[in-house]
Amino acid sequence: MDPLERLTTATRDRTAAGLRRTLRPRPPGPSLLDLASNDYLGLSRDARLAEGAIEAVRKWGAGSTGSRLVTGTTELHAELEHSLAEFTGMPSALVFSSGYLANLGVLTALRPRLIVSDQGNHASLIDGCRLSRAPVTVTPHGDVAAVDAALAGARDAIVVTDAVFSVDGDLAPLRELHRVVRGHGAVLVIDEAHALGVVGPGGRGAAYAAGIAGEPDVVLTATLSKALGTQGGAVLGAPEVIETLIDTARSFVFDTGLAPACAGAALAALDVLAAEPDLPERARSHAVRLAGTARELGLATTSPAAAVVPVIIGDPHEAVRAADLCADHGVRVGCFRPPSVPVGRACLRLTARADLGEADLTAVTKALATVKKQTRPYPAPNAGATRR
Amino acid sequence: MDPLERLTTATRDRTAAGLRRTLRPRPPGPSLLDLASNDYLGLSRDARLAEGAIEAVRKWGAGSTGSRLVTGTTELHAELEHSLAEFTGMPSALVFSSGYLANLGVLTALRPRLIVSDQGNHASLIDGCRLSRAPVTVTPHGDVAAVDAALAGARDAIVVTDAVFSVDGDLAPLRELHRVVRGHGAVLVIDEAHALGVVGPGGRGAAYAAGIAGEPDVVLTATLSKALGTQGGAVLGAPEVIETLIDTARSFVFDTGLAPACAGAALAALDVLAAEPDLPERARSHAVRLAGTARELGLATTSPAAAVVPVIIGDPHEAVRAADLCADHGVRVGCFRPPSVPVGRACLRLTARADLGEADLTAVTKALATVKKQTRPYPAPNAGATRR
Ligand SMILES: Cc1ncc(COP(=O)(O)O)c(C=O)c1O
Ligand SMILES: Cc1ncc(COP(=O)(O)O)c(C=O)c1O
Repeated sequence: MDPLERLTTATRDRTAAGLRRTLRPRPPGPSLLDLASNDYLGLSRDARLAEGAIEAVRKWGAGSTGSRLVTGTTELHAELEHSLAEFTGMPSALVFSSGYLANLGVLTALRPRLIVSDQGNHASLIDGCRLSRAPVTVTPHGDVAAVDAALAGARDAIVVTDAVFSVDGDLAPLRELHRVVRGHGAVLVIDEAHALGVVGPGGRGAAYAAGIAGEPDVVLTATLSKALGTQGGAVLGAPEVIETLIDTARSFVFDTGLAPACAGAALAALDVLAAEPDLPERARSHAVRLAGTARELGLATTSPAAAVVPVIIGDPHEAVRAADLCADHGVRVGCFRPPSVPVGRACLRLTARADLGEADLTAVTKALATVKKQTRPYPAPNAGATRR
Repeated sequence: MDPLERLTTATRDRTAAGLRRTLRPRPPGPSLLDLASNDYLGLSRDARLAEGAIEAVRKWGAGSTGSRLVTGTTELHAELEHSLAEFTGMPSALVFSSGYLANLGVLTALRPRLIVSDQGNHASLIDGCRLSRAPVTVTPHGDVAAVDAALAGARDAIVVTDAVFSVDGDLAPLRELHRVVRGHGAVLVIDEAHALGVVGPGGRGAAYAAGIAGEPDVVLTATLSKALGTQGGAVLGAPEVIETLIDTARSFVFDTGLAPACAGAALAALDVLAAEPDLPERARSHAVRLAGTARELGLATTSPAAAVVPVIIGDPHEAVRAADLCADHGVRVGCFRPPSVPVGRACLRLTARADLGEADLTAVTKALATVKKQTRPYPAPNAGATRR
């Protein structure tokens, strides 16, 4: 009766299926060209963020010391909430310790009687749906008519979508979704994780770009861990929403407040965005160039709306080999296999940082050319459109 | 058709029931004597932790930049995992961005066919039970016979318990639970959140103190946000467990790695514990003194096993008033109301930091004396034992 035996068996099965993961601790120096992180603006190593983090540690300490409701709310947290709301054009904001927990918090605490969730939504949104214990209707990716149909006759419904899908890199039809949501008296929850700091004027996000930021039936979630270069999450919305979360969101009430270092770094990142409002556009145009390169080489990709560029390989073993080939060329790319993507849709995930130079882009072209030559071609006929 | 109207109504109801929360941003200086945080060793403001955090930011940047599987694992994360495993006497460790997500990760990824969960377990463990979609048997608080009965005939079962319960402050019967778990071929998951750094020799935790650390059927979860003074979480266990989590735990795979500042601070905290192994005992003996004071004054409390001392008030309005009275005496205490505690069990929660002085303890005595005099006495006959 070995209680771990079934784990060993399952691990052996994952090994056979090419689905094992290894943690490869990276050294401090930039060993490979990074096209794998979500550090879209290159801010995580920016001296201004380091200064913001260090000042916060000196002033506030290494931790927030408790739940936000008890001792975990400092003036720094309040300042960050104010700045995030202002930046995104939303009435108010609430900071969580991660984007993951922000998503769980909003989907559970708003107590929806129905959640309509895009098929391509991020794992944290899916977990939020499950935890809410509401009935969930999963709609085909980007299908506004299906959302409309799902909402027919529903009360107290939430429609939830990634703004920019995390692996495909495409944009949700936010304006159309909002029109449908408004028509049914529902609430639209938009996860700006891959959009904040990248999409919209100055990086203010996809809701802002769609002209729906600040609408009472729009709620945003965000993470401080991607374009903003640090860690943490937030929910942005009407005061009624924020008050409800403060009182009842379990992942807020029963979690330690964000560490001051991260709050300080995020505030510094917002200052950088104010000082350099063209940074987001640089990341986006690099993504368009990378996708163009992949397409010219005959690789399956999409039209990026933000800074995420997938290159679909298909087989998980081949995808790992493709990522290794890129590493041989000095380029670190993401490699996504099931369960992160559907079976048969293993892919490379390239991210286009704002601070890529011409030499960097040339290196990527060479790496992708080798991938094209040395991996089996992606077999599916509809290679142009990936779905999670 | 105002989609927020039901939120407004629900908020009005909470106001009437005395269940509203307000975030009160605290200033950097110590305005009140802190008996409310989980900073049990007073390390969050320790210069050595600040140094650890600052060095990490300088060397590694403000964020980890991606999922632990992609770019979010640095050598610093690996070092922290090594140190945490060594400190707790466990074979291996995996760091998460919070204790909350560590709990969700372990309870879902181990794919139990049954979870037996103590009635007093923390919200994050309860959410983990829900997310696992396994059948859950909730057993009366600390009831080993009930756990034994629940396990009869079960396969692939997990028994989960807080080591030290977060509001009551009592210790789970870990040795007895392990004996029962072993007998049924199950796995025992222990949340060391309020025990790590406080309980056991040098603060090595409750499993270590019970002599069951390192057993193959014991898995620990921990947070870096309480005694260790920063933010983050960890799961500790056999390599089979850790490998399973790396490959399949959604809250690990789909979450950004812990910020370097927090990892650096946690490593520094472990160094402090190695240098000052008597710190935990100091926190514990202060807790025993505080509980003694409360009992002598005729207030309802428990026998603290760690650094948490509840004072049961009963009515939520009265509990808020009691906390305000303490604040008037310069003492900040936690105030727990439903849903954090059962209806009718609102309480003050005092935490006994290692660095409290005699003057501090005198101030608390005066504050509690006023609470006793000016609040309605707690009515329940079994006031000595609080249950969540
Ligand atoms: C779309 C999306 N939402 C939420 C998250 C979670 O954010 P965080 O890493 O801050 O927990 C991620 C990735 O990490 C994501 O890709
Ligand atoms: C028993 C227990 N487990 C887990 C957690 C969550 O840990 P963290 O705050 O690091 O998310 C807490 C409190 O925050 C807790 O009290």
